[in-house]
Amino acid sequence: MGEKTYIPDKLFEFSTKVFQKLGMTQEDSDTVCRILIKTDLRGISSHGVARIPIYAKRIKLGLINPTPQIKILKENDTSALIDADNGMGHIASEKAINICIEKAKKSGMAAVGVRNSNHFGINAYYSMKAAEEGLIGMTFTNTSPLMAPFGGRERLLGSNPLCIAIPAGEEPDIVLDMATSVVARGKLEVAARKGMNIPEGWAIDSEGRVTVDPQKALEGALLPFGGPKGYGLAVLVDILSGVLTGAKFGPDAGSLFGDLDRPQEIGHFFMAVSVENFMSLETFKHRMDSMIQRIRNSKKAEGVDRIYMPGEIEYLKSKELIEKGITVNEKVIKELNDLAENLGISDRL
Amino acid sequence: MGEKTYIPDKLFEFSTKVFQKLGMTQEDSDTVCRILIKTDLRGISSHGVARIPIYAKRIKLGLINPTPQIKILKENDTSALIDADNGMGHIASEKAINICIEKAKKSGMAAVGVRNSNHFGINAYYSMKAAEEGLIGMTFTNTSPLMAPFGGRERLLGSNPLCIAIPAGEEPDIVLDMATSVVARGKLEVAARKGMNIPEGWAIDSEGRVTVDPQKALEGALLPFGGPKGYGLAVLVDILSGVLTGAKFGPDAGSLFGDLDRPQEIGHFFMAVSVENFMSLETFKHRMDSMIQRIRNSKKAEGVDRIYMPGEIEYLKSKELIEKGITVNEKVIKELNDLAENLGISDRL
Repeated sequence: MGEKTYIPDKLFEFSTKVFQKLGMTQEDSDTVCRILIKTDLRGISSHGVARIPIYAKRIKLGLINPTPQIKILKENDTSALIDADNGMGHIASEKAINICIEKAKKSGMAAVGVRNSNHFGINAYYSMKAAEEGLIGMTFTNTSPLMAPFGGRERLLGSNPLCIAIPAGEEPDIVLDMATSVVARGKLEVAARKGMNIPEGWAIDSEGRVTVDPQKALEGALLPFGGPKGYGLAVLVDILSGVLTGAKFGPDAGSLFGDLDRPQEIGHFFMAVSVENFMSLETFKHRMDSMIQRIRNSKKAEGVDRIYMPGEIEYLKSKELIEKGITVNEKVIKELNDLAENLGISDRL
Repeated sequence: MGEKTYIPDKLFEFSTKVFQKLGMTQEDSDTVCRILIKTDLRGISSHGVARIPIYAKRIKLGLINPTPQIKILKENDTSALIDADNGMGHIASEKAINICIEKAKKSGMAAVGVRNSNHFGINAYYSMKAAEEGLIGMTFTNTSPLMAPFGGRERLLGSNPLCIAIPAGEEPDIVLDMATSVVARGKLEVAARKGMNIPEGWAIDSEGRVTVDPQKALEGALLPFGGPKGYGLAVLVDILSGVLTGAKFGPDAGSLFGDLDRPQEIGHFFMAVSVENFMSLETFKHRMDSMIQRIRNSKKAEGVDRIYMPGEIEYLKSKELIEKGITVNEKVIKELNDLAENLGISDRL
């Protein structure tokens, strides 16, 4: 498959025109596209501009509201509960993390929940915004059900990712962004297309038996990482994002790709804690740097060249992509150009 | 190995006399023993009265201060930083979680850090106190280094456990309490004594090679659960408990059993979030019950009789032990009776 490389501005300009043509305000469209481009720049191309076609499809089907009126339903000095009005998850979440940061700076810490929302991109984007402000940022979202509980065989839990970002000094910030499933469902699809087996422990078949057959796995369920521990974390993320915010949870959360007859109605949860509750930001960053350097410079396991901190691989990737530009594969370029044509936009990638 | 069963009061009375004889006030001693007995009643016998001999040893060696003057170093409406004055971790942590609960009830959420502390028992005890008050309770502690970073081979991270407890209604509260290592180091010791191999993935040898030889594993390092994900969580727990509180962290954290020449100087971190920031506690509990029942009543994997929620096994165990009493093995009974004799206490178990 071929690919082309773009400067971020080119992708941004193209993308924001698409969303505006779909009925979104320029402000909302710019917000979404800033997040998508930042995601591509972090090397997470699965969650960047490649997702525009499915977002556009859902808007056209009336499943995502292009002009959401975001409402704060409940608020105090340390918290807020936001109704995303079934808009793009990015829009409500940008607002939510901004409120969370502002309240945490004033009150020492804050938590903001979002309900009635849709896919919001990558967790890291929101946590990293908090870390840039000297806060410890935490982001949780539930997703459509893909995973069986530990000991079960029904798809009752999403891949429910969580991210914690922590400011460092000279070193890059720590950004732990992870799904609670062993792998993404996309990896089963890739193996099925290639006719390859999957490793034991990734998934079970519809009877709840461990399987190495990706087709049977697709009919069954993904497994949580680390057995009961990952299962517990997936439950926790669903509680914070879904149960506590008043969003759908468990098997009721809608799928971005799968459910083309109903809104997702998922939820998100953000927390920020001020470092300065405990010590000066300068001292903390110095301590963080010393921890990071101690780990990075320690002895490596056999066959390992370098020890990475959580998020460091993505950090190095983003430094490279800011220099080189964003590479998009030709299948995605064609989908985006077809979408532009379909919407009557003259721009092409 | 034989064992004997005791009513909780008998163990409590014996234990609090031991700590008082070691120089602790009745109040502090009662606090520690309440926590130890609650831990035994949860079926976590490794962290209950069985730990009294090592605590006593450290107090006698001057490594734990029996009469700590606990100080609040920094405080605002949502946070506090506490100096444990090198006392038993339980004493400062009981104070910390009480402050955290009080502040969270008033301000919506709170975080309390503890530095200059020692082993505090099980994380679940503290998180569960918050959950009983209608709060989401989170507890983190760092421990002495047992684990290599992902890709490394030096022991730079503790088993760094975390616990989140969430109130439910008719159903037992959710209590996810887990170490970030695959297994406890004790399991390597058991395998070594029995001359058995350990499963691949538990540990590496001193060269950073995967090993199934428990002796080589003891000379090497435990591995984080779930590869880079568990590694990331272990780093996170060390940051919250150690870096942020001003405690020792990474390889500098002292070992309860191993370092008999210096205090542990570890740290703990507690958070509490009020459910009522987002919805009424009654509605939330109802939603929690429906999530729990949906999972528990779902189809089981092959060979599985029952799906458990996080913490449910311990909950069922505690219901049983409250009826039946606490079983203590004879080796521990002998150690405790020897300690009593050594301290000139006439009581025996």
